[in-house]
Amino acid sequence: MGNTKIVIAGPRGRMGSEAVKLVERTENFELAAVIDHKHNGKLLSELGVSTLAVPVYSDIIECLNVVKPDVLIDLTTPEVGMYHTKTALSLGVRPVVGTTGFTKENLAELETLCRERELGCVIAPNFALGAVLMMKFAQVAGKYFPDVEIIELHHDKKLDAPSGTSLKTAEMIAEVREEKKQGHPNEKETLPGARGADFAGMHIHSVRLPGLIAHEQVMFGAEGQSLSIRHDSYDRVSFMSGVKLAVDTVMKLNTFVYGLENIID
Amino acid sequence: MGNTKIVIAGPRGRMGSEAVKLVERTENFELAAVIDHKHNGKLLSELGVSTLAVPVYSDIIECLNVVKPDVLIDLTTPEVGMYHTKTALSLGVRPVVGTTGFTKENLAELETLCRERELGCVIAPNFALGAVLMMKFAQVAGKYFPDVEIIELHHDKKLDAPSGTSLKTAEMIAEVREEKKQGHPNEKETLPGARGADFAGMHIHSVRLPGLIAHEQVMFGAEGQSLSIRHDSYDRVSFMSGVKLAVDTVMKLNTFVYGLENIID
Amino acid sequence: MGNTKIVIAGPRGRMGSEAVKLVERTENFELAAVIDHKHNGKLLSELGVSTLAVPVYSDIIECLNVVKPDVLIDLTTPEVGMYHTKTALSLGVRPVVGTTGFTKENLAELETLCRERELGCVIAPNFALGAVLMMKFAQVAGKYFPDVEIIELHHDKKLDAPSGTSLKTAEMIAEVREEKKQGHPNEKETLPGARGADFAGMHIHSVRLPGLIAHEQVMFGAEGQSLSIRHDSYDRVSFMSGVKLAVDTVMKLNTFVYGLENIID
Amino acid sequence: MGNTKIVIAGPRGRMGSEAVKLVERTENFELAAVIDHKHNGKLLSELGVSTLAVPVYSDIIECLNVVKPDVLIDLTTPEVGMYHTKTALSLGVRPVVGTTGFTKENLAELETLCRERELGCVIAPNFALGAVLMMKFAQVAGKYFPDVEIIELHHDKKLDAPSGTSLKTAEMIAEVREEKKQGHPNEKETLPGARGADFAGMHIHSVRLPGLIAHEQVMFGAEGQSLSIRHDSYDRVSFMSGVKLAVDTVMKLNTFVYGLENIID
Repeated sequence: MGNTKIVIAGPRGRMGSEAVKLVERTENFELAAVIDHKHNGKLLSELGVSTLAVPVYSDIIECLNVVKPDVLIDLTTPEVGMYHTKTALSLGVRPVVGTTGFTKENLAELETLCRERELGCVIAPNFALGAVLMMKFAQVAGKYFPDVEIIELHHDKKLDAPSGTSLKTAEMIAEVREEKKQGHPNEKETLPGARGADFAGMHIHSVRLPGLIAHEQVMFGAEGQSLSIRHDSYDRVSFMSGVKLAVDTVMKLNTFVYGLENIID
Repeated sequence: MGNTKIVIAGPRGRMGSEAVKLVERTENFELAAVIDHKHNGKLLSELGVSTLAVPVYSDIIECLNVVKPDVLIDLTTPEVGMYHTKTALSLGVRPVVGTTGFTKENLAELETLCRERELGCVIAPNFALGAVLMMKFAQVAGKYFPDVEIIELHHDKKLDAPSGTSLKTAEMIAEVREEKKQGHPNEKETLPGARGADFAGMHIHSVRLPGLIAHEQVMFGAEGQSLSIRHDSYDRVSFMSGVKLAVDTVMKLNTFVYGLENIID
Repeated sequence: MGNTKIVIAGPRGRMGSEAVKLVERTENFELAAVIDHKHNGKLLSELGVSTLAVPVYSDIIECLNVVKPDVLIDLTTPEVGMYHTKTALSLGVRPVVGTTGFTKENLAELETLCRERELGCVIAPNFALGAVLMMKFAQVAGKYFPDVEIIELHHDKKLDAPSGTSLKTAEMIAEVREEKKQGHPNEKETLPGARGADFAGMHIHSVRLPGLIAHEQVMFGAEGQSLSIRHDSYDRVSFMSGVKLAVDTVMKLNTFVYGLENIID
Repeated sequence: MGNTKIVIAGPRGRMGSEAVKLVERTENFELAAVIDHKHNGKLLSELGVSTLAVPVYSDIIECLNVVKPDVLIDLTTPEVGMYHTKTALSLGVRPVVGTTGFTKENLAELETLCRERELGCVIAPNFALGAVLMMKFAQVAGKYFPDVEIIELHHDKKLDAPSGTSLKTAEMIAEVREEKKQGHPNEKETLPGARGADFAGMHIHSVRLPGLIAHEQVMFGAEGQSLSIRHDSYDRVSFMSGVKLAVDTVMKLNTFVYGLENIID
C-alpha cells in the first residue's frame, strides 16, 4: 500500500501543530502541504512548527489542485472548516475534521456531498480515542447494568461541573438504559450534595484537585460485582491517536461519518 | 408478554440454588419445576433450598412433557447436561446451560439440533456478565491500543497464577491486536519477575492478598492517555445477572450461541 | 511468653461470635470462658457458636474470680459494657471494649480507675484497623496537602450519605488542615450537587451501587501529584484485626486508651 | 513573622529553575540572590529563568556575606553542594539541599557542624512529598498488615524494573514487617513471572505503558479488607511541595535532618 498523502489546515494551532508531528512520525503518512491563511508561499519550516520544508498555501483550491492529496486534516474554525470540507469533497479529497461547531444543516449538507461523490469524510467533535471508547463501552454496559454512577476528576482550574464528557457519557447511557433512580428510594443526604448531581437517575460526582489533569470513571454495580471503565487524559497529545484512526479509516470509507464512536467496531 | 416458564436442573448445587432464588425474585420468571436425580416426587420446599412448593422430577422427559416450560436452566455436570440439553431441544424447550465441559463435538451436535428445530440455545462457560463485558471491551480496545497490561488480583488461597480469566482476556485481545512486545526493548529486570508474565507480548501481573476476592484490571496506554477496564467480583451471586440475560435472550433466539459475549451487542 | 487468657462477654452477637473464632485460631490466645446473661452453667459448645467446651457464666464477678483471665473482651451493650469494664479493672483484668456508646463521664471514670490500678484498658468505637489507619494517614497528609476530597462508596441499601466514617475522616483532617475552600473560587454547578457535600471546605462524594460493600478513598492533590488512601471493607470479619491488636497492646499497657488510632504509631 | 530570605544555588537546572518559581510565588518567601558559577555580576533576569532582577554571584562566601539570607537552597551537584552546605553552616545560614550523592562521612560531618552551630539543616534525597508520605504510611501499615504487594506503573521509556521508589518502599516496610512469604505456599506460576518480583517475601509488579508517568500503589490485605496507598506523579513540579516544606521546617530547627520523612509527623 502506498503512502497516504496529507494536507493539514491550521498547522500553527494547538491541535494542528500536534497533527503535523503525528504525520511526520507516522509510517505511510506523508505531509504534502499545509494551508495557513497568513503565510502563503512560505515553507512550513519557516513557521516554527516543524523542520519539514513542505509548501504553505493560503488558497485551498490552489493547494488541493497542485498537491492532489488523499486526505485533508482540518483543524481550523467551524466557518473556515465548513468551506474547506466542501471544497475538499468537491475536488475528490477525503476530509478529516475536528470541530464541535458544525450545525445540523452543515452536517446534512456534507452528508449529501459525500453520497454524491462517494467519498469518505470523518467529522469528529472529540478526537480523544480513549474517551470515545470509554463512552461507547459505558453505553453497552448500561444496557445490562442500569445501576451506574460517574466520577469525573479534573484540576481545580476547571470552572464547570459536571464536565462536558461526563454529561455526554450520561446522555449516551440514557439512550439505552432502563430509567431508574440510583440509590435507595429513602436515602437521605445529611450534608446536601453528598449524592452528587442527578442525570436521568444516574449520579455524577465532580472532583477538583490541583495536580489532576482530566480523568473519568464510569462505575456499574450489580449484585456481587462491579464493572468500571476509566479514562485518564494526561496530555493533549492523546487526541492524535484519534486523528490517526480517522485518517486510516477515511481512506476505506465512501460515506459520511459523524463522531469517532461510529468508526469503532 | 406472558411469563417465562422455567425448569431448573441441579437446584441443590451452588449455582443451582442461586438460580432458584433468581427465578423466584424476577418478575415475569416463573419456576415451574426442578429436576433432581435424588428426590423424585417431592416438593422443592422439602429440599431446603427454597420455600416454593414446585414439583421435583428425576426424569427430564416426564418433567418437560408434563410441565411444558419455555426454558430449561441446566446447572448439573457436563455429562448430564449434554443429555438434558439434547432432550430439551428435541421436546421444543430452549436450554440455558452453564458449563465449561462440553467438547467441540458436543457443541457441533447441539448447533445442528438448534438449526433443525429452529430453537434458541445458550451454552455459557462463564455467567459473570461483568467479566464477559470486560473481556469484550478489552478486545475492542486492543484493536486501537496495542499497549496493554493486565493486573489480576485474588485472595491468597488461589494456587494458580495467572488466573484463567486473565489468560482468556489476553487470548481474546491477541486475536485482534497487532503483535507487539510490551515495554522498552532494552528494559532490564533488576529483580526477576518484576515485569510479570508474557503472553504474546502483553504482560500479566498476579496479585495475591488475603481479603481480596476476584478482581481484574486491563490497562491500555497510548501517548498522553490510559484506558482501564476493571471488574470486581465480590460474590458468586454475580453470576445470576448472566443467567437472567441468557434466559431473556434465548426466548428471542432461533439459533445456537456459545458464550455470553456473543449475545451482547 | 505464655498464653493470653481471655474471657469474651457477648459471644452470641455478630461481633462476639467473630471474636470467639479469632481467639480460637490465634496462637498464644486462649479462650478461658464466656459471659452470657442467658446461659449460665452451660458450655460454649452448647450455644451453637463454637465447638469449644469452655464454661459459660452469667455473673462476671464469679467468672473473673474463678477463671482469672488476663483480658476481658466485651462486645455487649454500652450499659452492660460499662459495668463489665469497671468490674474487670477492679479485679485486675485488662478490658478491651468495642463500643461507641460510652459517655465522656464514663470515659473519665474508666481513665481514673486505670490510673489507680495501673492497668491497661482499650475502648474502641471502631475495630476496623484498616479504616483507622486510613483516617490516621489522611490526617497526617492533610497537614501538608490542604486540597482534599473524599469519595465513599457503599451498597445501595445504605440510607445516609455521607457515611459516618467519611465524616469522621473529614473531622480528623479538619483538626490539622489549614481552612480552605476546595475547587476554583468561581466554579459553577450546571447540575446541582455535582461538587458533592461541603465539610469545612473539603468535598465529600457518596456513591451508592448494588454489589459494593463499604469503601472509602481520600484523595489529596498538589501541583503535579496526587496521593490517595483507600480502604475496602469486604466483610465484618475485618474488625478482628483490630481486636487482636487491642488485646496484644492492652497486655503491655498500664494506661487508658480511647480509639485504636492512639495505639498505632 | 517576617519573610524568609532565600538564596538559590543552581538556578538554571531543572530543579533549580522550578525552585526559583516556587520562591517567587510563595508568600513570605523572598529570593535575595542566586549562585551560578558562570554568570557572576549579572541579574537573574538576564539568565532566561525568571523576570526577577536579583543579583547573581559565583562566590558563595561573598554572596552569603553580602546578602545575609536565612536559607540556602542548593540544587547543584554533590561536590559543589557539600562545599556550599558547609560554607552556609559556617556563616550561620540554614541549608536545604536536594541530593542523593552525599556519603555517610559527608552526612556525619554536616551533623557535627549543625550541632556545633545549633543550626537547622535539611538534606533530602527525594523532595516528592507525596511519595515520601506514601512510603512512610506504608511503613506504618506494614507493622499491622504483613501481607503487602506493590504495583508501580511507569511510561514505557523506563529501562529498569522495579523502580527505585518501589524498592525503597519495600525496604522501609521490611524494617518493621514480620518476615512472611506473600501468597499461598503452594502457589504455581503457569506463566513465569506472573507473581512478580520477590523482595523479602513481598511481591513487586512493574507495569510499563506509554502515556503513564510515574505511579505507585502499595496494597495491604487482611481478612475482609484491603488498604491501598497510591501516589501519582504527573510532573516534576511536584518536588516543589517538598522544597517548601523543607524551607519552612529548617527555620524552626536547630538540628540536622536527613530525609523528608524525618520532618513529617
